[in-house]
Amino acid sequence: MAQKSVDAAKLITTGPLPGSSKTYALGPHGIRVPMRAVEQSPTMRREGGTMKEAPNAAVVIYDTSGPFTDPAQAINPMRGLDGVRTEWIEARGDTVALDALTSAYGQRRLGDASLDAIRFKGSRAPRRAKSGANVSQMHYARKGIVTAEMEYVAIRENARLDAWTSGREHAGDPVGAKLPRVVTPEFVRDEIARGRAIIPANINHPEIEPMIIGRNFLVKINANIGNSAVASSIEEEVEKMVWAIRWGADTVMDLSTGKNIHETREWILRNAPVPIGTVPIYQALEKVGGKAEDLTWELFRDTLIEQAEQGVDYFTIHAGVRLRYVPMTAKRVTGIVSRGGSIMAKWCLAHHKESFLYTHFEDICAIMKAYDVSFSLGDGLRPGSIADANDEAQFAELDTLGELTKVAWKHDVQVMIEGPGHVPLHLVAENVKRQIEVCHEAPFYTLGPLVTDIAPGYDHITSAIGAAMIGWFGTAMLCYVTPKEHLGLPDKQDVREGVITYKIAAHAADLAKGHPGAQSRDDALSKARFEFRWQDQFNIGLDPEKAKEFHDETLPQDGAKTAHFCSMCGPHFCSMKITEDVRAYAAAQELVPETALVRGMEDKAKEFRDEGSELYR
Amino acid sequence: MAQKSVDAAKLITTGPLPGSSKTYALGPHGIRVPMRAVEQSPTMRREGGTMKEAPNAAVVIYDTSGPFTDPAQAINPMRGLDGVRTEWIEARGDTVALDALTSAYGQRRLGDASLDAIRFKGSRAPRRAKSGANVSQMHYARKGIVTAEMEYVAIRENARLDAWTSGREHAGDPVGAKLPRVVTPEFVRDEIARGRAIIPANINHPEIEPMIIGRNFLVKINANIGNSAVASSIEEEVEKMVWAIRWGADTVMDLSTGKNIHETREWILRNAPVPIGTVPIYQALEKVGGKAEDLTWELFRDTLIEQAEQGVDYFTIHAGVRLRYVPMTAKRVTGIVSRGGSIMAKWCLAHHKESFLYTHFEDICAIMKAYDVSFSLGDGLRPGSIADANDEAQFAELDTLGELTKVAWKHDVQVMIEGPGHVPLHLVAENVKRQIEVCHEAPFYTLGPLVTDIAPGYDHITSAIGAAMIGWFGTAMLCYVTPKEHLGLPDKQDVREGVITYKIAAHAADLAKGHPGAQSRDDALSKARFEFRWQDQFNIGLDPEKAKEFHDETLPQDGAKTAHFCSMCGPHFCSMKITEDVRAYAAAQELVPETALVRGMEDKAKEFRDEGSELYR
Repeated sequence: MAQKSVDAAKLITTGPLPGSSKTYALGPHGIRVPMRAVEQSPTMRREGGTMKEAPNAAVVIYDTSGPFTDPAQAINPMRGLDGVRTEWIEARGDTVALDALTSAYGQRRLGDASLDAIRFKGSRAPRRAKSGANVSQMHYARKGIVTAEMEYVAIRENARLDAWTSGREHAGDPVGAKLPRVVTPEFVRDEIARGRAIIPANINHPEIEPMIIGRNFLVKINANIGNSAVASSIEEEVEKMVWAIRWGADTVMDLSTGKNIHETREWILRNAPVPIGTVPIYQALEKVGGKAEDLTWELFRDTLIEQAEQGVDYFTIHAGVRLRYVPMTAKRVTGIVSRGGSIMAKWCLAHHKESFLYTHFEDICAIMKAYDVSFSLGDGLRPGSIADANDEAQFAELDTLGELTKVAWKHDVQVMIEGPGHVPLHLVAENVKRQIEVCHEAPFYTLGPLVTDIAPGYDHITSAIGAAMIGWFGTAMLCYVTPKEHLGLPDKQDVREGVITYKIAAHAADLAKGHPGAQSRDDALSKARFEFRWQDQFNIGLDPEKAKEFHDETLPQDGAKTAHFCSMCGPHFCSMKITEDVRAYAAAQELVPETALVRGMEDKAKEFRDEGSELYR
Repeated sequence: MAQKSVDAAKLITTGPLPGSSKTYALGPHGIRVPMRAVEQSPTMRREGGTMKEAPNAAVVIYDTSGPFTDPAQAINPMRGLDGVRTEWIEARGDTVALDALTSAYGQRRLGDASLDAIRFKGSRAPRRAKSGANVSQMHYARKGIVTAEMEYVAIRENARLDAWTSGREHAGDPVGAKLPRVVTPEFVRDEIARGRAIIPANINHPEIEPMIIGRNFLVKINANIGNSAVASSIEEEVEKMVWAIRWGADTVMDLSTGKNIHETREWILRNAPVPIGTVPIYQALEKVGGKAEDLTWELFRDTLIEQAEQGVDYFTIHAGVRLRYVPMTAKRVTGIVSRGGSIMAKWCLAHHKESFLYTHFEDICAIMKAYDVSFSLGDGLRPGSIADANDEAQFAELDTLGELTKVAWKHDVQVMIEGPGHVPLHLVAENVKRQIEVCHEAPFYTLGPLVTDIAPGYDHITSAIGAAMIGWFGTAMLCYVTPKEHLGLPDKQDVREGVITYKIAAHAADLAKGHPGAQSRDDALSKARFEFRWQDQFNIGLDPEKAKEFHDETLPQDGAKTAHFCSMCGPHFCSMKITEDVRAYAAAQELVPETALVRGMEDKAKEFRDEGSELYR
């Protein structure tokens, strides 16, 4: 069957979010860190008889959306993004460009003319570490080297501060008055060296705008995309990635299990300004026709190299599913629910031995450090229901992931640890506590957790509750869950809903952790709300389009965007308007001691009546 | 302008949820407590060469939906519901039926022929306590009397247990194997007597199916409805109430602020099987043309009596907004955001004295006990933004609410306390701790709280995160927030989204509190999911319709409802299917010691290969 040509451009969403513009903070090594600035309208204040304008500073927001939201950049998904890291990687002089793909499978796909129509044209030659070299960010960090990537994430984590102190005008009330602690490149280096944070950044993925995952940084979120045997095309998957980062996904996992996984991945990587993760065992299983027991180390190894040379930034590896843990799942309500975990469990049963992921773990490390692929050590035995939370199987595997973390670190390979799953609220804290302890503070990366099983169709919400809490307790990255979880594959609107929901959870965690500057966005939005700057309220929010749409359902007129009331209460009942009176009064009287207050009240009571008590109409 | 006649019937949603049927648990005094039973299909197991059926017990669910979901009952919203409590109230012999409405305003509305078209026909004569009598549930409780209402809620809180031990067949695996602690009528009485729980149950609202609010019971949720000057009709509000309880609202607050508040409320009350709450100051303000400073005690008193004689079960009273607290809000980012709070603050400013709610608090108690209206002491100074959380104004008011609780209890009047609002995760616990302490364990009833301000359009989610946590910590009832919060009035779909979201939060809290039996629903759903009983999974969930709709978007065929895989992974990747192999294996071998395991593995590995390793296709 002839393949239909891929036309990625036709589906791609470009252009800024409403009211936003792209701004860049400059650093060394030609670093330009993108940020999103939301301009605000001025506050209107009555002074004497006239209205005065007091300007409000733009709100600067950490921006994951890549070049797609910058009208100044030409977007062509058929060509892919520029390699912003290319020079840094080459300048380090520890890698070589290869003449051909190392992977036998990759070579076969490349040589298959029937795939020409769906192939991404213009892939770069893959790079690999020079013989004996280690090109991981952890390796550099441990040698005391601050890489361009580390400089980049330091600027990025300070988004608000840097933008505000680098010439941007301070106007009106400075929102976020608490000065952020400064994240320095040296702090970044130190966190990576000790394994408490990672920068997923494959040398074959120079397109990424580097980001950091660790509990002393902003909480990140991951969005899963990927086609399956049942549904979805290459164009749709590329657009899902672009769409997910538009709304705030910090990394994207391509979990494709259908045909053409290799080609789909290439399209995604060449257009992805965020780290891309995969679960290589999925593709390996496709290669053996779905027969888990036919999987071999050699085949898996070829798959790892295939994907590493394409540029995948982190691999989920379920190496903690040990033979003796498998029977621990037999009495569970929901057994093994991780796809990777169940594949490996089946392999262990069929062969009656430890999986090749476990026995060849050091061989895997050797591959990881040659391309700087980070481990995301998979929780193949995570609980799939409230009943199975925090059980013996889950924690046995976690112990093994802790051991493997040490092995990876011996090779200076970056590691994060995947976590559950389904966990009731009162058992959430134990997950983080144990993970930090047994995995030596390697970053935790959790799926939710869902805090109840009873809401299919709403599992973005059941899981956001657990995610906010586990993020507060120290999880570094939250894997989103969409409303379709357990029911079907997410479409674009589900991806948006999932991403926004997880931005809420991550931001709630940042606030609770007291992350410097996090609250400035809340304060700016609340100030806009209080001052009836409707358009600013929409634009500062996570989803300006939906907020405006909801507002307009009741009050569509343009005038309502500046009205000093809204549809909820109508003009008579507006509590915010009444507060303005309280505030104006208190400000005018400069009341501090209570006696002054009482005297002032008397004056004010008279004045209120004299003026016809008409202040809020 | 002539009024259009009200035709409530045309909009009302009736009939059971998919897969559900109404069942009644019987008690003394003719008590019939409605519960919802979800029938399940059997588990299919392979035994030898044939498939065997193992039946699964019906899942019994606490049911708030009233007669509307019982096909055996004739529903006529023009006539209203039967008074299931009428006999109990009359039998107590401490009330009298009045010849006429006590409220002057109520009499005027009744005498206004222009309102005939929109008036509910067939209201009962109002009742009031006999002179000197106190008809509150707290009064009975303190005298050692177990009322029919207390018997009723005891049965209701045990929903699962009672249904399962009263003749319902136990079949297959009993879901919810942990036996619930039994809630006894005496326990209910004791909790009410000490003020730790309330049964909102106005003697003029005999239509209610009694329910209890207290932290030693299931966490409840409230849904707000109500028209405003800008939008919505009487029919729509009645349907919103029916719709809200269909999805699980335990109480409904009518926050109408537009015209015809009195008549709208009558329609709602006569059709409401759940307690109805109001904020009487809203209507009082309408009566003075929106001029807060023109409010008087006499007018407010008449409004309380008007509503008490209609049957409102709880009143939000913002008596904690004291004059000296008002200036504490001046430096806030969002000042006063409670409508009632701001009205009273404005009144205090205009008159320079304590509000009549505070100065006449004992007079209000006298009214409450004559009808058994419960206090919901309003948090007029709650924070409206993260920046204002847990501040001086908020906690000053809370102290006053604690004082007023003691005053109300002196009169044996039932009390709950309203809480915030907007609170970051790390400040949530302090709210509950202080409330329990300063309000002497009176039930806490919180709005959310929202854990961030940055997501207009998604505040059902920002608030569900806070709600789940605060519910876990001890909040007895959670006031829902819809996606339209801050933006517009909720429509029916927003009400459904808000209610389901809050059922998630409440259930997550019940699980975390270890409420006996709560997990049985999770276990039943997870078991159904694991066994690919798709229809059961949908039906046991909070929203069977949405779950099915989502599933059908990818796999609409009927066959897919029984397929042993789904669209997420396709047939090769199904982890749940693989687990069946693990389980079957472990069960067959009865493996406990590890040596046996290893031997078994060897056997099994051989068997796997001998059979062609085809187990999961």
